[in-house]
Amino acid sequence: MQTSDEVKNALNVLFRANSELYSERGFQRRIGYGKKPALINIDLANAWTRPGNAFTCDGMETIIPGVQALLTAFRARGLPVVYTTTAYNVTEGPNSDMGMWVHKIPVEVLQEGSDAVQIDSRIAPLPNEMVIVKKRASGFNGTFLNGYLKACGVDTIIVTGVTAAACVRHTIEDGIAEGFRPIAVRECIGDRIAGAVEWNLFDIDAKFGDVEPLENVLTYLRGNAIG
Amino acid sequence: MQTSDEVKNALNVLFRANSELYSERGFQRRIGYGKKPALINIDLANAWTRPGNAFTCDGMETIIPGVQALLTAFRARGLPVVYTTTAYNVTEGPNSDMGMWVHKIPVEVLQEGSDAVQIDSRIAPLPNEMVIVKKRASGFNGTFLNGYLKACGVDTIIVTGVTAAACVRHTIEDGIAEGFRPIAVRECIGDRIAGAVEWNLFDIDAKFGDVEPLENVLTYLRGNAIG
Amino acid sequence: MQTSDEVKNALNVLFRANSELYSERGFQRRIGYGKKPALINIDLANAWTRPGNAFTCDGMETIIPGVQALLTAFRARGLPVVYTTTAYNVTEGPNSDMGMWVHKIPVEVLQEGSDAVQIDSRIAPLPNEMVIVKKRASGFNGTFLNGYLKACGVDTIIVTGVTAAACVRHTIEDGIAEGFRPIAVRECIGDRIAGAVEWNLFDIDAKFGDVEPLENVLTYLRGNAIG
Amino acid sequence: MQTSDEVKNALNVLFRANSELYSERGFQRRIGYGKKPALINIDLANAWTRPGNAFTCDGMETIIPGVQALLTAFRARGLPVVYTTTAYNVTEGPNSDMGMWVHKIPVEVLQEGSDAVQIDSRIAPLPNEMVIVKKRASGFNGTFLNGYLKACGVDTIIVTGVTAAACVRHTIEDGIAEGFRPIAVRECIGDRIAGAVEWNLFDIDAKFGDVEPLENVLTYLRGNAIG
Repeated sequence: MQTSDEVKNALNVLFRANSELYSERGFQRRIGYGKKPALINIDLANAWTRPGNAFTCDGMETIIPGVQALLTAFRARGLPVVYTTTAYNVTEGPNSDMGMWVHKIPVEVLQEGSDAVQIDSRIAPLPNEMVIVKKRASGFNGTFLNGYLKACGVDTIIVTGVTAAACVRHTIEDGIAEGFRPIAVRECIGDRIAGAVEWNLFDIDAKFGDVEPLENVLTYLRGNAIG
Repeated sequence: MQTSDEVKNALNVLFRANSELYSERGFQRRIGYGKKPALINIDLANAWTRPGNAFTCDGMETIIPGVQALLTAFRARGLPVVYTTTAYNVTEGPNSDMGMWVHKIPVEVLQEGSDAVQIDSRIAPLPNEMVIVKKRASGFNGTFLNGYLKACGVDTIIVTGVTAAACVRHTIEDGIAEGFRPIAVRECIGDRIAGAVEWNLFDIDAKFGDVEPLENVLTYLRGNAIG
Repeated sequence: MQTSDEVKNALNVLFRANSELYSERGFQRRIGYGKKPALINIDLANAWTRPGNAFTCDGMETIIPGVQALLTAFRARGLPVVYTTTAYNVTEGPNSDMGMWVHKIPVEVLQEGSDAVQIDSRIAPLPNEMVIVKKRASGFNGTFLNGYLKACGVDTIIVTGVTAAACVRHTIEDGIAEGFRPIAVRECIGDRIAGAVEWNLFDIDAKFGDVEPLENVLTYLRGNAIG
Repeated sequence: MQTSDEVKNALNVLFRANSELYSERGFQRRIGYGKKPALINIDLANAWTRPGNAFTCDGMETIIPGVQALLTAFRARGLPVVYTTTAYNVTEGPNSDMGMWVHKIPVEVLQEGSDAVQIDSRIAPLPNEMVIVKKRASGFNGTFLNGYLKACGVDTIIVTGVTAAACVRHTIEDGIAEGFRPIAVRECIGDRIAGAVEWNLFDIDAKFGDVEPLENVLTYLRGNAIG
């Protein structure tokens, strides 16, 4: 259910008025790019990128090529690449690792080891890239993501993936809290309901990270700011 | 900048269509109430609840009486009450505790010890209630909130305060990730920009916690489910 | 380098005197067993359990049969079983996940995917048991261990493995901090230097968890306290 | 109960033999000093530094002057200084913040706001220095310590205080796990039982941080490595 132009226009009117208030109050500052970025691809696994799953999202015709371009740029510079997926080892009975989330969304379909939770083959990870299996929305919760990024001196996280309303947003919120500069790549973030990309990127840009067009990010990755 | 009826109506059309998709896919489940709730009042300190600050929010004419009713109910049952505020000890120079957030929003005005960061006197904490000073959006990040709730056997967090788009939402996202049942009290959550309460409560209700009217919460607090 | 009887006796003299002081001061309390235990086997992978590795530990002739008996008891009751191992995806270059620890100990030999970091086949995990790859000493740091235990309602952690001075101790310290009752199984904890098991179990028993003989733990696992 | 020379000698024999094994295996590496240190004074509050409390420790005649010298050096360079204390808001009833630790040690005597938990006046904090109230052994657990250190670019933690067997050791273990270079200042770390300082500093030096004489630390603080 992609967002119609009518909905986009209505939201944009709202965002412009809100931006005026934010601007007067000193919000919507630019956090900018740092010296060592990592690419964080959130939940671009088959359950989200391919049709027919409860988790299927829209927009892959734009997201996948965008992520391919980012992967090329990161690999050319030898910069760290991380993928997350969401998967559970025990999806029934008293010893499940699903926790409370199954009481809100259908995580019981995300069996660890299944094809559904493998990273989409069009953007397959290389052996020295990190594939982090998470259990919660944020890529940081209960994972080594923070430790890994700190261990290799990363100061900036370039974030792509799905969904804008859950895993991407929560990862970016945690990212700035943990001391990173989050950059959300506008063309590379999706969702499955109308409006969710737009309003979540608006909130993110106001308070948690810079929403940047892909072209700006690629220019940064080719430039001298890194190193 | 409270949300106009026109904006509310336009968003509601969108939310209804999105709810249909969520319903087909198995999202928007009810997490429900547990056996031991805690009240978590997010950032209801003067900088947010009183006029004239960069952080001032709308809706206090509804939020404050709602929180007063909740405080009465929690105190009558001897259940845990927690307040958060956001404040910084060092707001300039190389040893600041503000971190990256100052590069997005004006946290430099939130000096620890100042009147601005004290809890609003209309809902003042009692000595045995916890006032948690946080540095980030989420009440959980870098605080003893999780440890406290676990230490006293809490399974449900009743969440009020501001803002819907930042501290309330991030706290609820972290809350379900940490294994609590989050309940967002609809009349007791505010923001400072139009639409933010509506779309953030929509996202929360779909994926992270139940958005409930104050009256339901008060009925639960008077009932036999607790104990 | 197993601890000689002479060293054990000298340490025991010291422990008796120290226990007197602790007893007067109100330390060395009993934390006791709860209602839902999980078994946590720390780093019982080949690098630690088999000869010839920098990480090789002593005492496997006692530890392995003890863990086998515990596994049988846990599996008979359908209680959660967790194994940890320590392994790294990138052990050289600027994007390593080893972090600071490589500047103290030889973690560069623990390559993810290698035979050295697989759980010892004599105590092999079943498919519904959790194998957690950690990067640091504690089983809790940067992993889903806390989330998993909370998600399945565990209140007690029965801890075995190596080493007493590092991964076992740090896991137990974090375990009580996170709200669990740690039980260290005396016969199932090892190290590679003389005295380390004795000293660290003494400190643990005084402040962080109960050190219990295997037989007591097995009796608890057969009894009615669980459920 | 300070450690007698006889006990020290017996332990040193053991440590020498153990160091040989560690040396062959590649442990006991030097982590070294970084470019921006913070001073972390663990639990140097009256309950630990003055006579008559269950938590009273030995060795203050050496620890206090050592910490005074460190404070002078840190303040002269404008480097961050952090103190921790351990204190509880609710020490009885069902809503206590003491958690599981009260089932091992007498934390019920550490009432928040009492004189016992104030930092010792001989080493009083300045207004721009951080006093962190913790609830657990580690200075990192449930606190903003990690966030603060990262926010101001610290890479090295100079650790003093008590006790060697609990709060100091757990803080250092967490410190290296979080990516800092821990330096334990030998003369400035104490305990209340014989042998605990010696044994725990031996384990720390082997695996978690460098144990350094005060004079070396002061030389570093005067030098050009910082900045």
